Amino acid sequence: MKYCFGVDIGGTTVKLGLFEETGEILDKWEIVTHTEEEGKAILPDISASILAKLEERGIDKADILGIGAGVPAPVTEEGVVNGSANLGWKYKEVKKELEELTGLKAEIGNDANVAALGEMWKGGGAGERNMVMVTLGTGVGGGVIIGGRVVTGAHGAGGELGHVCVNYDETEVCGCGNRGCLEQYASATGIVRLAKRKLAEETRETILNKDTVTAKDVFDAVKAEDAVAIEVAEEFGRYLGYELANLATITDPSIIVIGGGVSKAGEVLLSYIEKPFRERVFFANKDVKFALATLGNDAGICGSAKLVLES
Amino acid sequence: MKYCFGVDIGGTTVKLGLFEETGEILDKWEIVTHTEEEGKAILPDISASILAKLEERGIDKADILGIGAGVPAPVTEEGVVNGSANLGWKYKEVKKELEELTGLKAEIGNDANVAALGEMWKGGGAGERNMVMVTLGTGVGGGVIIGGRVVTGAHGAGGELGHVCVNYDETEVCGCGNRGCLEQYASATGIVRLAKRKLAEETRETILNKDTVTAKDVFDAVKAEDAVAIEVAEEFGRYLGYELANLATITDPSIIVIGGGVSKAGEVLLSYIEKPFRERVFFANKDVKFALATLGNDAGICGSAKLVLES
Repeated sequence: MKYCFGVDIGGTTVKLGLFEETGEILDKWEIVTHTEEEGKAILPDISASILAKLEERGIDKADILGIGAGVPAPVTEEGVVNGSANLGWKYKEVKKELEELTGLKAEIGNDANVAALGEMWKGGGAGERNMVMVTLGTGVGGGVIIGGRVVTGAHGAGGELGHVCVNYDETEVCGCGNRGCLEQYASATGIVRLAKRKLAEETRETILNKDTVTAKDVFDAVKAEDAVAIEVAEEFGRYLGYELANLATITDPSIIVIGGGVSKAGEVLLSYIEKPFRERVFFANKDVKFALATLGNDAGICGSAKLVLES
Repeated sequence: MKYCFGVDIGGTTVKLGLFEETGEILDKWEIVTHTEEEGKAILPDISASILAKLEERGIDKADILGIGAGVPAPVTEEGVVNGSANLGWKYKEVKKELEELTGLKAEIGNDANVAALGEMWKGGGAGERNMVMVTLGTGVGGGVIIGGRVVTGAHGAGGELGHVCVNYDETEVCGCGNRGCLEQYASATGIVRLAKRKLAEETRETILNKDTVTAKDVFDAVKAEDAVAIEVAEEFGRYLGYELANLATITDPSIIVIGGGVSKAGEVLLSYIEKPFRERVFFANKDVKFALATLGNDAGICGSAKLVLES
């Protein structure tokens, strides 16, 4: 039996998984991400944790196919990161450094792209080869996979769905410096922003509270048939659904998978995205399916492992 | 020496090229496209023309690596077309049929995608591996190539840039049935539409004539510093440049190549596209270059030949 590791490097914790080459998860665990001093301890910590796991399990290095790792930053084809705000990294040769530290082969990818690969392998997109994944969390991330391969692009910055402009009239500025990015409407934060804007001038009764409203509150209120919440969900869905229709015209996926914290709202969320999508999608892409992500926090380690298995 | 054929199947003519495996074009010629009776003669005509060329040149079939062909329709990974309005085809197994007719291996692609591949091989995008090509002709076509591979998608309909919605307030309907498609503003026809809309309510002097205006007239007038034409070019450039900025955020190209009849306007055209693009592009994609296509009518046969050479 051969094995590999999947590593999901986040700004707070690093998630690690030990996989059989068949895809079975044998073990998973977390370590703290030490971002001090430009995150210089992160790769040594990961390396030490992996080597300790081999020792603990009595697995020989020769039986390890490699380490896959997802990083919250664009990653070049050579496995280089030119800065990651979340990790404190500046220029870092992640692949080279991790290989030198462990003596194992490493494959590095962008975390959102890698999570998409995980969902296509054994999650919401299982069995498909052409998939768009949208991650609706604090921000909006994404991954586009065409013909089984992740669209990484010239800087490893492909699939940045959250920073597509969907509203040229927006006056508030996005974190990226532009205005009208999808993230301003479709992230958890964006949904709260839409809800607060509406509640500020709303006269109808609603169970939403403008001081404490969260994205979860909005979809809970939608399920309780709150008319104001439903209009917020419709606005969210229109921005996201229209943008996904444009994206489908360019990338021609067979399935769109919705993940991230906001997707915990469940099937109701999909209905608000699908309706505007169907109104607008190019005729050649009419049969695109929608699905919720199913791997949750494991998408990153699974996709990272898959990076190794298919390399 | 080995050889291959590149074939560009259009609604009026079929362009054919005989290539050395090094990429050198030895010969090129055209035949008429017979679209009658659901275009049933098209593939037999192409086959006969190719076999006659082998005879004429005294080249042995064993020295032919294959035939590449670009088709004005989405093409599946299996080389199947599910209808092409321009050719009269319904369901057609193009790859299989062409292979049976000629006894040679065939590779089939969408014409716009194949033209993009040609421009990346030996045209405006030479030396790049991540490229978006936009073809501004009667319509707006496109091809997206990431990591050296064409983004074809689940139905072979990838890269349909012309049918991305860029204006949700549009009231006129596009040929595809939607409203606000890029093609309604950035094709030769679209530029004329923008010019006519403006001229209908224009009081300033202009050298444009609202009854006979063409896309070429607009850019000729731009070169003559006609203020009205400049505003038409700015509007055209804003729709196209903003959309390309969104597209760059998703696909992360290193170069954007502009081709098609409208691109004959030359470098001035690029300036009107680049300015709004730079205003809006995501920071990770700031260094994208722009270039004009250079292969003209040969892009299709070159890209088709390349389909074979890299298969």
